[in-house]
Amino acid sequence: MTDFGWTRDQFHLPMGMIYLDGNSLGPLPKATPARLERLLSEEWGEQLISGWNGCGWMEMPRRLGDRIGRLIGAEPGHVVVGDTLSIKVYQALAAALALVPGRHVILSDTGNFPSDLYMAEGLIKLLGAPYELRLADPLALEEAITEEVAVLLVTEVDYRTGRRHDMAALTRKAHRMGARVVWDLAHSAGALPVEVAAGAADFAVGCTYKYLNAGPGAPAFIYVAPRHADLAEPALSGWLGHEAPFAFDQSYRPGAGIERMRVGTPPVMQMAALEAALDVWDRVNMADLRRRSLDLTTLMMDLVEDQCPGLSLATPREEEARGSQVSFRFEHGYAAMQALIDQGVVGDFRAPDIMRFGVTPLYIGEEEIHEAVEILARILRGATWDQPKYQQRKRVT
Amino acid sequence: MTDFGWTRDQFHLPMGMIYLDGNSLGPLPKATPARLERLLSEEWGEQLISGWNGCGWMEMPRRLGDRIGRLIGAEPGHVVVGDTLSIKVYQALAAALALVPGRHVILSDTGNFPSDLYMAEGLIKLLGAPYELRLADPLALEEAITEEVAVLLVTEVDYRTGRRHDMAALTRKAHRMGARVVWDLAHSAGALPVEVAAGAADFAVGCTYKYLNAGPGAPAFIYVAPRHADLAEPALSGWLGHEAPFAFDQSYRPGAGIERMRVGTPPVMQMAALEAALDVWDRVNMADLRRRSLDLTTLMMDLVEDQCPGLSLATPREEEARGSQVSFRFEHGYAAMQALIDQGVVGDFRAPDIMRFGVTPLYIGEEEIHEAVEILARILRGATWDQPKYQQRKRVT
Repeated sequence: MTDFGWTRDQFHLPMGMIYLDGNSLGPLPKATPARLERLLSEEWGEQLISGWNGCGWMEMPRRLGDRIGRLIGAEPGHVVVGDTLSIKVYQALAAALALVPGRHVILSDTGNFPSDLYMAEGLIKLLGAPYELRLADPLALEEAITEEVAVLLVTEVDYRTGRRHDMAALTRKAHRMGARVVWDLAHSAGALPVEVAAGAADFAVGCTYKYLNAGPGAPAFIYVAPRHADLAEPALSGWLGHEAPFAFDQSYRPGAGIERMRVGTPPVMQMAALEAALDVWDRVNMADLRRRSLDLTTLMMDLVEDQCPGLSLATPREEEARGSQVSFRFEHGYAAMQALIDQGVVGDFRAPDIMRFGVTPLYIGEEEIHEAVEILARILRGATWDQPKYQQRKRVT
Repeated sequence: MTDFGWTRDQFHLPMGMIYLDGNSLGPLPKATPARLERLLSEEWGEQLISGWNGCGWMEMPRRLGDRIGRLIGAEPGHVVVGDTLSIKVYQALAAALALVPGRHVILSDTGNFPSDLYMAEGLIKLLGAPYELRLADPLALEEAITEEVAVLLVTEVDYRTGRRHDMAALTRKAHRMGARVVWDLAHSAGALPVEVAAGAADFAVGCTYKYLNAGPGAPAFIYVAPRHADLAEPALSGWLGHEAPFAFDQSYRPGAGIERMRVGTPPVMQMAALEAALDVWDRVNMADLRRRSLDLTTLMMDLVEDQCPGLSLATPREEEARGSQVSFRFEHGYAAMQALIDQGVVGDFRAPDIMRFGVTPLYIGEEEIHEAVEILARILRGATWDQPKYQQRKRVT
């Protein structure tokens, strides 16, 4: 059994703050500052250039990739860390397109995170006609997968509503139609058990600064299914994806398997922070996490339904159909969220009317959910506070 | 006058090590650990998601870009930091190509850093025929610039030999032929005064982990000339380059000027380290640096010529024709470099026979050059040491 008391104790959370925005940026693991201090003083400071081999920096993208791989159900050796999620989306899309010659449609849905769509637009502009980005309604996505589609680009959990796509079903349909699928796991990795291998995903990408708690600007990751790994064409063919980077050849030869998805020099400080963050994850069972996440999100839905008239649930009630966030539509959502934040309950707002709360069992429990909803209910009833700062909340409420 | 005694005191260098590899990875500035500690504990730890605005993280790529801009002679507001150098090469190349419709040749030289060539290859493969990467001999590059050339891609200072291209002359020739130029400043930024604006460069890119000392995996930068800034087509059209990233529109609209060269979430920890590193640079006059760099590199050439038979200079003697490194060809270069490193003199080796030494006046002076060459000379004379580790060198020599 995962010990969520232990996990909670691994994070630094500001006094008096109820942090329900771990789906945007996770909090600081207590072990991270010492890890960075060690990287700076003992590794970079003392080893300098020899740190690349001597301290294992060069291998970190693969080593960390494997640790993330466990959380998303990947085969060992098929995930690599680096760059940003947008870059990884581009790599996956370009490689997936090249696997389906003769087809020119990238299909996504209007609920996808905009940067995914923008990167697809940029790629398509470069490739020129007849390449095309087609968007379906999220609820009509499965029907929109036709034999014209080359690549399906889907974010499993919708960043606004928390609605979750059925990865296995969409992938099956896509494969039946001869298409390849790129899964964006930005709101899945660390939020729920993912099974990229069992679900037959072709490519998957994700970020590590949300549920994985690796800090602001933490690197992304990419998974390529073993059956594609040695065929995937790297559009961003940087030297660290070369078969022999330090041979300094004049022509590119892709490295073996997932190695070819590396591009340039990896961000060692951000990777060290990711390493510290993953130490916590190594002691988390994903099934336990999911059970607790569902209990907490259900509790929040129930409490809001009870105590917060005017808010309507934007997240599906059905357990299988949602991730680890709860979103509500509310006409005055922006103002209500500002008031909440002012009182130390940190969620966020997404236009036009979505109040969004990330529920992260590693450091959030029933008590916080109760207290957050109670404060929200008081705000809705018109309560005001003399002292706006959350630091004072504990004394006031 | 730049106080190089002061600058030297700003760096941590391991006891007994003579570090002549700052052209690969600069050493740790003493101020960096405290800056990172503050970022982690006070910013990320206490501000969490609100750090993006409250701590200025979102603006760092531009703010740091301007500080680098001073070192490379850029107009304020036209440099932005992010990603890796390979990614920035790709962005610059794609944007430059789009500015020259009807032409399909990217011209570079065989001395360019392989990753630049690889990224060009990847882009060309995506674009398909008739796009083409053409390589000239470095010394015949100017003549190879014809009216067929769309984009000239050049690294100013050769990573192996330290030979420096004439930026103004090559750019003039390229412009006369109707081509655009992308300058890679990997071995220029912080190594010598660069004048991208005065030299009429169209695009410039560079990294910050070499002469700028921002640490392993530090981010890259990109400069777009003001005349192109609002025309440049961003191939890697990520959300942070969007005109209004937080409007979450479904279609991409490029941000104003250099903003569109941003892609995904920037690496805040690496940027904080860059910020600390640039504090030193703010007190460096680039003309002073260049004078001192030339004096030190000349001294090294003279001493090696005198004391190290068998080594032949691979770097041009002429001051204008070289950067801030000195390279020698030597049949037994690999072994000699291993022996040097073993004795605490850290340079590096590039196949087939190049011994490479970075000379960085911020923390290297005459004494280190004398001592390094003396140890090299002893190695060449067949000296051996009982104690191989550099920590013991001070006692032995």
